[in-house]
Order: sequence, then C-alpha cells, then structure tokens
Amino acid sequence: MSKTIELAQHLEQLHINNMYKSDFYWTWDKTDEELDAIFTVADALRDLRERNKSTRIFDSGLGISIFRDNSTRTRFSFASACNLLGLTVQDLDEKKSQIAHGETVRETANMVSFMADVIGIRDDMFIGEGHKYQKTFMDAVKEGYRDGILEQQPTLVNLQCDVDHPTQCMADMLHIIHQFGGVENLKGKKIAMTWAYSPSYGKPLSVPQGVIGLMTRFGMDVVLAHPEGYDVMPEVEEIAKKNAAATGGSYQKVATMEEAFQDADIVYPKSWAPFAAMEERTKLYQAGDQAGIDALEKKLLAQNAQHKDWTCSEEMMKKTRNGSALYLHCLPADITGLSCPEGEVDNSVFDRYLVPLYKEASYKPYVIAAMIMMSKVKDPVSALMALDAAGKRKFF
Amino acid sequence: MSKTIELAQHLEQLHINNMYKSDFYWTWDKTDEELDAIFTVADALRDLRERNKSTRIFDSGLGISIFRDNSTRTRFSFASACNLLGLTVQDLDEKKSQIAHGETVRETANMVSFMADVIGIRDDMFIGEGHKYQKTFMDAVKEGYRDGILEQQPTLVNLQCDVDHPTQCMADMLHIIHQFGGVENLKGKKIAMTWAYSPSYGKPLSVPQGVIGLMTRFGMDVVLAHPEGYDVMPEVEEIAKKNAAATGGSYQKVATMEEAFQDADIVYPKSWAPFAAMEERTKLYQAGDQAGIDALEKKLLAQNAQHKDWTCSEEMMKKTRNGSALYLHCLPADITGLSCPEGEVDNSVFDRYLVPLYKEASYKPYVIAAMIMMSKVKDPVSALMALDAAGKRKFF
Amino acid sequence: MSKTIELAQHLEQLHINNMYKSDFYWTWDKTDEELDAIFTVADALRDLRERNKSTRIFDSGLGISIFRDNSTRTRFSFASACNLLGLTVQDLDEKKSQIAHGETVRETANMVSFMADVIGIRDDMFIGEGHKYQKTFMDAVKEGYRDGILEQQPTLVNLQCDVDHPTQCMADMLHIIHQFGGVENLKGKKIAMTWAYSPSYGKPLSVPQGVIGLMTRFGMDVVLAHPEGYDVMPEVEEIAKKNAAATGGSYQKVATMEEAFQDADIVYPKSWAPFAAMEERTKLYQAGDQAGIDALEKKLLAQNAQHKDWTCSEEMMKKTRNGSALYLHCLPADITGLSCPEGEVDNSVFDRYLVPLYKEASYKPYVIAAMIMMSKVKDPVSALMALDAAGKRKFF
Repeated sequence: MSKTIELAQHLEQLHINNMYKSDFYWTWDKTDEELDAIFTVADALRDLRERNKSTRIFDSGLGISIFRDNSTRTRFSFASACNLLGLTVQDLDEKKSQIAHGETVRETANMVSFMADVIGIRDDMFIGEGHKYQKTFMDAVKEGYRDGILEQQPTLVNLQCDVDHPTQCMADMLHIIHQFGGVENLKGKKIAMTWAYSPSYGKPLSVPQGVIGLMTRFGMDVVLAHPEGYDVMPEVEEIAKKNAAATGGSYQKVATMEEAFQDADIVYPKSWAPFAAMEERTKLYQAGDQAGIDALEKKLLAQNAQHKDWTCSEEMMKKTRNGSALYLHCLPADITGLSCPEGEVDNSVFDRYLVPLYKEASYKPYVIAAMIMMSKVKDPVSALMALDAAGKRKFF
Repeated sequence: MSKTIELAQHLEQLHINNMYKSDFYWTWDKTDEELDAIFTVADALRDLRERNKSTRIFDSGLGISIFRDNSTRTRFSFASACNLLGLTVQDLDEKKSQIAHGETVRETANMVSFMADVIGIRDDMFIGEGHKYQKTFMDAVKEGYRDGILEQQPTLVNLQCDVDHPTQCMADMLHIIHQFGGVENLKGKKIAMTWAYSPSYGKPLSVPQGVIGLMTRFGMDVVLAHPEGYDVMPEVEEIAKKNAAATGGSYQKVATMEEAFQDADIVYPKSWAPFAAMEERTKLYQAGDQAGIDALEKKLLAQNAQHKDWTCSEEMMKKTRNGSALYLHCLPADITGLSCPEGEVDNSVFDRYLVPLYKEASYKPYVIAAMIMMSKVKDPVSALMALDAAGKRKFF
Repeated sequence: MSKTIELAQHLEQLHINNMYKSDFYWTWDKTDEELDAIFTVADALRDLRERNKSTRIFDSGLGISIFRDNSTRTRFSFASACNLLGLTVQDLDEKKSQIAHGETVRETANMVSFMADVIGIRDDMFIGEGHKYQKTFMDAVKEGYRDGILEQQPTLVNLQCDVDHPTQCMADMLHIIHQFGGVENLKGKKIAMTWAYSPSYGKPLSVPQGVIGLMTRFGMDVVLAHPEGYDVMPEVEEIAKKNAAATGGSYQKVATMEEAFQDADIVYPKSWAPFAAMEERTKLYQAGDQAGIDALEKKLLAQNAQHKDWTCSEEMMKKTRNGSALYLHCLPADITGLSCPEGEVDNSVFDRYLVPLYKEASYKPYVIAAMIMMSKVKDPVSALMALDAAGKRKFF
C-alpha cells in the first residue's frame, strides 16, 4: 500500500466536513482534526509528487495572488501549490491596477474573482489592517457568489496577515513533526519562540503570534521571550494559554533569551516589532504623516539596538538540550557577519542548520496546496485515492 | 437538453463562416449574426462553467496581452478568458522590454507571437494612434504567418482602442439583453449615453463611441448627450445613424442630461475627454511638449469643472422610466462623496445598482472567450456540443 | 512516415545518454551528437506543432525564469518553450523579491525551486559574474535535491551568460542549416562574425563568443573581425581553434570588416564591448563607483565612435559571395537611418533580410524546448514517437 493510501485512510477517520468551501484565516479557527487533515494531505501530495503522480484536481482555473508586501518564498510557494493542483496564478499587482484611482476593496474583489478558485492574500504591514482587508475581500466575493456575479465561491488562503501567518507556521510545524518522528513524540518538548536583534525595522508579529497560537496545541512546553516593550497581541496570548491548558502542555513568558533557550528542544529566534509601535505606525500612515513615520523608525531602530545581546549565538545554542536544539527560522534571517554585522543568528549556527532550514521551507507549498484542496474538494479521501491510481505528472 | 445544446442549435442557424481566423477590432466590422454568435457562445461558456464542464479548446498555447494603459478588470477578464479555454497569458510589459531601444512594432509583433494563438491589445491613450498600433501589429503577424515565421496565425481581441471598446460594450449589451429578457424586448427602449462630470482628466472616448456604435443595432432609441465641446468621433456617429436606420430604432443627440434621462430605460452616464483636445494631446506627446501637455490638462480640468451639474444624482434618476432605469458603468466610477467630492454619480444611486453593475462586468471574460473561440475554432457548434458531453473542470 | 518519425529515427542513432538530467551552460560542453540531438528535437517539435499535435511532456510543472537583464525575445522564447511542453513559467523578478535584503544565491535557488523542472537564467551584464551566478545557483539546487529538500532536480538552460549565448547561437545555426539545406552543405562555407558600430554602449560579448565557439564545429571557415581593442575572451578563441582543427574547417582573425566580408557566405555584423573594459566595469560596479562607471561609459562611447566605418552597408554586402551572403543578427539591430543616425547596418540591407531574420529568431523557442526535453526525458525517441501518435494541441 502506498504512503498516500495510508494517509487517505487516516484522513477518513477525521471530522473534516466543515472544511469544504471554508477560508483559512487563522489556525485557531480550525479544530485539531482539521489541522491534522492539512498535514495529512500535504504529506500525501508530497508523496504523489515524489512518485511522479499527477496531483491535478483542476483542468483549468485561477489562483489569484495579492501581495501587499514583498515576498519571494511565499510567492513561489503559492505558485507551486497552484501549479501542483492545476491552477494558474494571476497576480494582482496593485501598482499596475486602477485601485489607486479610488476603487474600493469590494469592487476589486469581485472584478478579479470572475474565474477565481482560490485567493491568496499577504497583508502584514499594518496592525489592525491586514486581517480586515482579507475579511472585507472575502465577504465581498461571498456576496458576489450569492448574487450570481461569480459562478463559484473562491476561498481564501491567508498568506500572512497582521495576526497570523498560518502557511508559515503550519510548514514549521510539519517540519517539527517529521524531525521528531510524529506528533506523538512532541509531548513535553520545549520550544522557545524568542525575539532576536535585527538591524532592520518593523518586522511583522505574525510569525511569533502564529507560532504560539499553533504550537501550544501539541502538548509542548511553549516559551515566549522578548525584551520589554516587544509584546505580541494579548488576544493571541490568551489563545496560547487556552490551547496549552487543553493539551496538557504549557505556555509561559520569560524575560531573557537564556532562560527560554535553557534545555529547549526547538528554538525559533526572530526579530519583530513592538505591537504598540506598529499600531502607532498604522495611524501615522493613515494620516499620511511621513515625518512621524521617519521619527518612529529612528526611535525603533535605537530601541532595537539596545538588545543586540538577544542573538542566537553558539554560546546561546549550548544552553539548549544537548546543545543541539532544532533551529527554526522563516527566512530570510539576518545573519551576523554574513548579511549584517550583528543580527539574529551567528553565521556558524545558521550554516549548520542550512539543510533542515530549507526542508522547513519546502513544506510550505504542500501546506498551501493542502489548504486549497481541503477547501475545494468535497471528498478529499476519494480524491487522494484516485490520484494515487491515476496518471503521471511527467509523461515520459 | 442543456442550455448549451440549445445555444449550439441557435448558433447553427447563423452565418458565421467568416469569423474563423478573423480579428475583432470594432463591433461595426461584424454582421448582426456574428455579434449574435459572440453572445450565444458567451452564454454557452458560462452555462458550461456553471455546470463544472471543462471549456478547454486548447491543450496548450499562449494568449499575449499588451496593456499600453493601466487596467485591472480587463486584465483579469482576458486572463480569465484565456484560462477558460486552456491558454496561458504571457504579458508584454513594455517597461521591461527592449522596445524602447528602437524596436519596431513589426519586429516586436513577430518576436512575441512565436506560439501565440491570440493577441489582446489595449491602446486607448492617443486619438489616432491606438487602432493604428493594433492594425500594424496584426498586419505584421499575418505577414509572419504567410512567410513561415509563425506556425499559426494569431488573431486579435481589441481590449480597447481609441475608437471602440468592443469587449466592454458587448459585455454591457449582453447584460442589457439578460436584464430585459432577450433582444426581442429591446425594440423601442430608450438608452441614454451621457457625459458626466469627473474630477479626473482625459478619459477615453472609446466607451461612448462603442456604445452608440453597438447599441443602435437592436432597435433601441439611442440618445447621446454631452456639454458643448465634448463631441465624439463623427465617423462613429455616422455609423450610429446608419445602424438606427437599418433596425427601426433611432439615434439622436440632445444638449442636456435631463433631456437624455427623460423616460430612459437605460442610462450610461460617464466622463470622457473632448475629441479635439485628445487630438491636440496626441500631437503634443508626439512633439514631446510637456509644458503644452500640462497646460492642456489644466485647461481641460477647468473646462470639466464648468459642468459639475452633469451628474447622475438621485434627482436625475427620477426622470427615468418609473425612476428606475437600468444604470450602467464600465467601472471604476467617480462616486460623489465616496471616491471624490463631486463625480459622475451619487453614492446612493451607485450603491443601489452594485449587484447589476458587477454582473455587467462579469460578462466580459465570457465575451472575450467567445471572441477567441469564434476566431480559433472552425466548427464552434460541434465544439460546444463536444464540451457539453465531455469532462469536468474540477475533477473531484 | 511523418517528419517527426524520421527525426526520431535519426535521434536513435546518436549517443545522447549523458543529456538526461544535464544542464546546458555552453555549447562546447556538449558533443557534436548532443548538439545534433538538440537540432533534431527542435525540428521535430516544430513539425508536431505545425501538424497540431500536442507536444506536452508535462501534466504540470514550473519553469523558473531569472532575467538579470532586460529581454523581450528571449523571455517570450522561454515562455513559448515552457508552454509547448506543458510547463508554467514563474518569473523571479528580483526587484520584487527579498534578495536585496541579504539573501544568498544558495538560499534563493532552493526557495524558488520547490517545484521547478527547469531554470532559465540570463545574466550577461558582468564579465566574470554571469556564468558564476548560474553555476552557484545550479550547484545549490543539486545539493537541495541530494539533501531531500527538492523532490526533483531542476536543470539549467543558460539564456545568456557572460561567456556564451547558446540558445541564440543554436537558433542561428539551425537557421543556417535550413537555409543551406543541411549540415552536409556547410563544409567550406565562409562565415564572418564581425564587430559593427553602434551608438549604444556595453553590448555583451556572449554572441560573438558563442558564434565562434559553435560555428567552428561544422567544417566552415569562420572569420572573426573587430577593431583593435575589441578582443573576445581568449579561452573561447582557443576553443574555436580546436573545433576548426577537428572538423577540417578554419578559424582566423582579420583586421578589417572588408576582409571578413570578402566572399563570405554568411555575415553576422554586430556591436560588442571590449572585454578588458567590461572587466573594468565589473570591478567598478562591485566597488559601487558610479563616477568611474560614468567615465568608462564616456570613454567607450568615444572609442566606439572612431569605428563608424564598421557598418554593414550595401557596399560592404557587395563584397560577399555573389553580393548575397546570408545576413544574421540576434536582434534588435541598430539600423542606420531607422533606429539611429549611424548604426550596425543599412536600413535597405536590414529590410531585405527581414523575413530570414525573423525566421532565424523563430527557431529559438524550439531550441530551448529541445534543450529542456533532452534534459528531462530519459527516452526522447519514444517520447517523440508517442507525441506523433497522440492527441491534438487545439482540440477543435
């Protein structure tokens, strides 16, 4: 029996009926079994690909991508996922579009979705705005479908908002699961999500928030650490606490990187911006106050620079379990001595983890494809079985 | 019998042999039966899509898009149409290309058309230039095909030129046909194509020209209204007059919006630039006279501002038949109090017509796909019947 | 028997086992039989296309394009080739990407190659850098495949580097072969690769290098001519000499365009930059010395201007065999009196050769597709036979 068939049989056990036609905003909207389904389908699609099986579930169709912030890996991951399933990507590049001429989100949403099967949106720039944009957009296409404007209802894959970065965190998690040999081995494992110094400014909070919101669901001991003033959204911390309580794991905050790294099995050191400062920035942008934005940037860079000791050095890594915790990063990292004089991680640490880091990233296209498949296919068990039995991807 | 089969049977009655391998420049190049064929195939493709039938007529192939002016909805409509038929869009972004380095249109046309099945061009910026560019381009690829450079002859879909905007006006018309329950119900209906005030400058004339050139063919009473100095191309007005005479409808010009709206069944209030001023602008651009262009813009904005009373207000709408004429717009509209302080239409009017407006736009991808299909498929009747009988678009 | 079957039978005679999974950097990496295989498959794909046969060898998959220099015809050729085989192009536009934020080539290579079947790279700007970038990129993806990050090993098509421009020169050569009725008719034919004056600055050397590195392999008398100081890379000249010795042809350098054109059967007059100056420019760029770059440009333009007599005039053409040598150019050309006051070629000469010039260009998509097919398909003979027997590209 192929791995895909085994995975399809596991999928059959799960309660996943609500996933058909559903959007993927945040991992905490989904049940444990629904997340399990995403991981299962991602693994199955990878297995099919490795065995040169076609994984097309569409003969034609469009995946619309909207990147309101720069991206390489997420862009290519979305493109790969769409291609894997038979969809063509059409990018809404807002610089090229008429949106600046006063078009509303509601109108745009309908105008770009005529034949859309899935919408991938990245909007992580402004606290309080990213999720709102995605929600407004998707409400508009649902109305469009209801009103007979669109023939099918496109579904959302959140490619990063101000709150969560589910495709990243789900890929991170799938990587952890495979590295530790299964979810059943994660109970009691310690994972440290920590702030790290970066010479750049204003990195999104969606990764640490996504990590504590997701990884508290697997019985792990999740520790968040950051310098004073770099708090994440309190709503997400509440979710992390509830998750931990439900799974027999724990969630705690500590004040130093050292404490977080102590005996950690997994470490995720990464820069982010202070939540309150990001709220302030959003207001400054809305007011068009460029002088205020510049002043804020200057202040934040100076604040960051006070915490250069928050770095994933060789010394810091030695504190982790057997000195060899699994090092995670969403990439690109600010690497001390390589991409900047002082950054998030020592070059020698980063270099030692290069292969696992790239593997971590390599799950993202499959996670996205699985999210699309679960929302577009009514009976994914039969679909996987049919793909397993059907034709080649490369014919010759 | 499916709707598609019914439509295929209707298509069979039409004289459409000349459409195979033909270009689509202007609606008035086409016979009534040829336009009927486009509408029929558009409806059939939509029916097939709604029933999850694959509408691919190509296993592979390219649709080349050339947008010499910004566009969101036409870009996505063309991409959707190509995808619907199995073509991949390759965009010629002239900013990226070597064209600025002295490449002639003839050379470019051949170099981008190696595998092109269809070419979509938008070039509406300069009076006297847009159509010429399209014609030069298509003559070159015809020669290329004749000379054995290209293996197949790509055909044109005019995505807007300085004279006509056929994909827009055909979508508008198909919307009208469906709203009124068939072409047979349009006889004697009054449609008002009127100028409206916009705070922006230099909007193309191709929409009003396209509308009077097309909608005079269905026995309707077509009224054009604009302030003094905002005349459209006289050649197109001649066509409108001839059309009206041939179909038992009428074409007339009136001097006020009020008169045009009086008892109208359909209204299409929209800003455009004066024809003579656009000719002047073209010459200034050709001479590279930026100061002249700026002065002209200033003058035209001032001229526009004298006609702020040309606006589709609630009061104006009350003059239409039962106060509830069908409101049309090609979008995006300049909406008073929403996208600008004073614009083409009251926010409350626009908002009331949102669903029909989006529906109007939703016909465009199908109209484009039908234009492509009619020019690329020798026996479209058999093709529709085969598609009706064949496989799914979404397999699972 | 179809032409494709004949070509497949010819392919069967060739020793081409090493081509599967191989990269295409330079023509001189490949054996004569391997180049023969590319020409053969290119002709077969064109024949299949002309007979409306599907040439898809992929059900889905990605071709990644990286253009580190502007391009129209190579971009469209790569897009056409990918589409022909069933691949979708995903472009890495580095302006949009995070690469500028310190990402290394190795990381980028893995991050964009998750589902890549083929990578097309153009990097011809800097002497000593273009090939290095391609090599670093491809080494990284090979490691990625070995380490289980990528499920398949993508292969390279060099779309132009600082050393060779194989897709251009192979297309040029296939054009020559067809113009002269077969490789067997090329023995003793004289081809003149000559520098020509252009008012622009810094054109790549990869075309003249590629031409002398490839065209010395067919028993032709290859002559290179350029003003003093415009030498090409000495390593490539060594290759040209060895090739000529091996095939019974000749390679020589002459000091004037007149001498090169004398009794030539084929002429390829084209501007390029001095090798030493390009090395200097690379160093200036690496040092970020904009003043130095500007000074160098000024100097080189002045140097170019001393050689305006190096132009493919009517008079010069008269010196060639029967005054009617085959005129080649990679396009776009600097045409005297059309695109510039004084350039590489007289307008009347260029115009007379328009059809053959466009045909020359039209081989490029097929050459690229053949390169991809030979590196991705283990048994291309069977694949061609299967395609010949299989379905239509345009279904109706």
